[in-house]
Amino acid sequence: MTEAYGLSIPNQLVDVCKPARCALIVYDMQVGIVPQISAGREIVVLCRRLLEAARAGGYRIFFTRHFFLPNNIAGVGQLRRAMVWQRTNKPEETKPFFLQGSPPWEIVPELAPREGEVVIDKITMSAFEGTFLNLAMRDAHLDCFIIAGIALEVGIGPTVRQGLDLNLCPVLVTDACGSKTADAREHTMATLTETGEVFAFSSAEVLSAMSPH
Amino acid sequence: MTEAYGLSIPNQLVDVCKPARCALIVYDMQVGIVPQISAGREIVVLCRRLLEAARAGGYRIFFTRHFFLPNNIAGVGQLRRAMVWQRTNKPEETKPFFLQGSPPWEIVPELAPREGEVVIDKITMSAFEGTFLNLAMRDAHLDCFIIAGIALEVGIGPTVRQGLDLNLCPVLVTDACGSKTADAREHTMATLTETGEVFAFSSAEVLSAMSPH
Amino acid sequence: MTEAYGLSIPNQLVDVCKPARCALIVYDMQVGIVPQISAGREIVVLCRRLLEAARAGGYRIFFTRHFFLPNNIAGVGQLRRAMVWQRTNKPEETKPFFLQGSPPWEIVPELAPREGEVVIDKITMSAFEGTFLNLAMRDAHLDCFIIAGIALEVGIGPTVRQGLDLNLCPVLVTDACGSKTADAREHTMATLTETGEVFAFSSAEVLSAMSPH
Amino acid sequence: MTEAYGLSIPNQLVDVCKPARCALIVYDMQVGIVPQISAGREIVVLCRRLLEAARAGGYRIFFTRHFFLPNNIAGVGQLRRAMVWQRTNKPEETKPFFLQGSPPWEIVPELAPREGEVVIDKITMSAFEGTFLNLAMRDAHLDCFIIAGIALEVGIGPTVRQGLDLNLCPVLVTDACGSKTADAREHTMATLTETGEVFAFSSAEVLSAMSPH
Repeated sequence: MTEAYGLSIPNQLVDVCKPARCALIVYDMQVGIVPQISAGREIVVLCRRLLEAARAGGYRIFFTRHFFLPNNIAGVGQLRRAMVWQRTNKPEETKPFFLQGSPPWEIVPELAPREGEVVIDKITMSAFEGTFLNLAMRDAHLDCFIIAGIALEVGIGPTVRQGLDLNLCPVLVTDACGSKTADAREHTMATLTETGEVFAFSSAEVLSAMSPH
Repeated sequence: MTEAYGLSIPNQLVDVCKPARCALIVYDMQVGIVPQISAGREIVVLCRRLLEAARAGGYRIFFTRHFFLPNNIAGVGQLRRAMVWQRTNKPEETKPFFLQGSPPWEIVPELAPREGEVVIDKITMSAFEGTFLNLAMRDAHLDCFIIAGIALEVGIGPTVRQGLDLNLCPVLVTDACGSKTADAREHTMATLTETGEVFAFSSAEVLSAMSPH
Repeated sequence: MTEAYGLSIPNQLVDVCKPARCALIVYDMQVGIVPQISAGREIVVLCRRLLEAARAGGYRIFFTRHFFLPNNIAGVGQLRRAMVWQRTNKPEETKPFFLQGSPPWEIVPELAPREGEVVIDKITMSAFEGTFLNLAMRDAHLDCFIIAGIALEVGIGPTVRQGLDLNLCPVLVTDACGSKTADAREHTMATLTETGEVFAFSSAEVLSAMSPH
Repeated sequence: MTEAYGLSIPNQLVDVCKPARCALIVYDMQVGIVPQISAGREIVVLCRRLLEAARAGGYRIFFTRHFFLPNNIAGVGQLRRAMVWQRTNKPEETKPFFLQGSPPWEIVPELAPREGEVVIDKITMSAFEGTFLNLAMRDAHLDCFIIAGIALEVGIGPTVRQGLDLNLCPVLVTDACGSKTADAREHTMATLTETGEVFAFSSAEVLSAMSPH
């Protein structure tokens, strides 16, 4: 830890992994999303370990939960995205993958949020866009986060990048973030780790840093 | 309506009340909030009429729903607010009025959202802060909103003021916005209407402007 | 000061007025704005005293500076505002009061920002909307601000209200905030102080609280 | 162009390149940045062609301009970034690359903004974070942008990703975006183009689509 200008600046993983400054974010571990990734069940197991460590350590815990707006209320960007993803030129033929309140929207039961943990509902890829996540973190004077979930290249990447722009310090738990393909994973990891600002560590390393000494 | 620089600028209520550019926002009409206002039931009835008109007219409809974070995850600002509102110097003695998922958090049954209508969960007074409301409205190219609910001086005022800063055109439905006291209502109305940028009309006038001719 | 959940919650003016948690915001004290208020020169003098105290105390200092977009790039909301303020139905006849870089846009020389102080350029009434002010404050772990300038009812009010929604603790320096009319001042003060969350004190009181003991 | 739910959804480059819905964003083409890239001068020439086409076509034009906060006002995230980029463990030894108002902060003279064009000052990588760019674009009912400048992997990538989350449709002008290394370029392009939501075209193609037929 480095002290300067009255601030405490983390420069190692152990500096970051403290409940007074760091949140755990469990990203989009929903019934409709986990099975899309071949390693989905392994990611659940690793997220569970992180959750248990965070609960034991008194960390603030946030779960993100994605949904899509119904077509009749959606706009240009959402309809365009649906057309691209679902490979059709007809917006009326696209279907929101899941709506708020539907079964695939639920967080998987193994990771069910407990009392005192907060769910962030969102319609964006970055967990910080159009949500109160940054507001809540900053109100508690948190400036770091540990993130794991699915998928690295779809939503965790943009969350980490926006987190940097919000001047937060991100810890990416590499084996606890799922990807659809090895290629997608590699490009995203290369992009995220290029400048050296993102901490990227295995769950074993992060769990060790989170445990009180 | 005035056309300039390729844009269409509303200058009368009838210009605003069109489903292609205007949303209906039903503000915090929750089980735990409506009974706090003596005119609560009247506000429910008037919101219901606005809802019916919006449904008939094909307007996009958003409901806001407030909640408080659990104390253990809350921060300085939320705890300070609770201390001020609940008149105590002991943060541990404050209680969040209602949590996400609890009965008082639900929207009153008379105004229950239907399929194709969207709920905006929030922890702020302004419905635009830390939510995806502006994102969704702008994606659908909406630039105006009709707002009603409870309470004018607590949350609707800040929503309308932030709406102006977001360059949206607000329509305040005066008799469909509840207040705790006549004084609070008067000060807030004076503040909101001072510059002439806010459309403030009775529900009779708004309903008439919303009905197709 | 109250300690709870690992956080330090301010409940008196002296708790807030510390450089480790509080910024000074000098609001829109621009060449084109100060003369619009009859008490403009007095407000300059009081802002200067606050600035000197903040410089002496090592507070972080931000100046806001408003401007208007050129008509050809402006949008519906800005053009509508100009029509309302300038009382015309013809958008092409409205004029932006001042553009970025023009003489009336400058901060008055008595309050000229020094090295190590930051100017926040904005097109909104709230200093937090569409700016990096909150981002910079939160990065320095500030959660309070002292605000003074012109005009209370136009821009300082919305800044204070949005500051509350951002979970910041605002200190309004009452005699160092200018207003166009006594009525506007009264309504805005009543609205802002209603819930008890805003600290409103005279410059004498704030200067005393800022001075090291 | 596809019409649905009262909205017009672009699905080809020519649908996007219309002044009524699209802005040109010239990204960080500053005196202190252009020479950092070996192809800097070529990027200037291509940005100039895009600017001329946008001026001729009546597009709204925005320039972004980065700066760093002085160390004494900076926070944890900015100081940490400076330490990582400048490879030092001593925050006091880091230097902001350039401050607001200094010569390297200026936009290169060949691309100097003209009257009616707007500069977006920023302290973030994404041009949408902590700025009024989205606010101004949405007020003018723009929902697409053409982007070019320096550097693709540092700031343009995050701008494009956040633009997607804001439901805007981005057009990346591939040969008019500079990179430090071929590797960085490749990873970023792979990441940005993976989902098919980003339009990536050469300047020849974009200039052709922008020219009126």
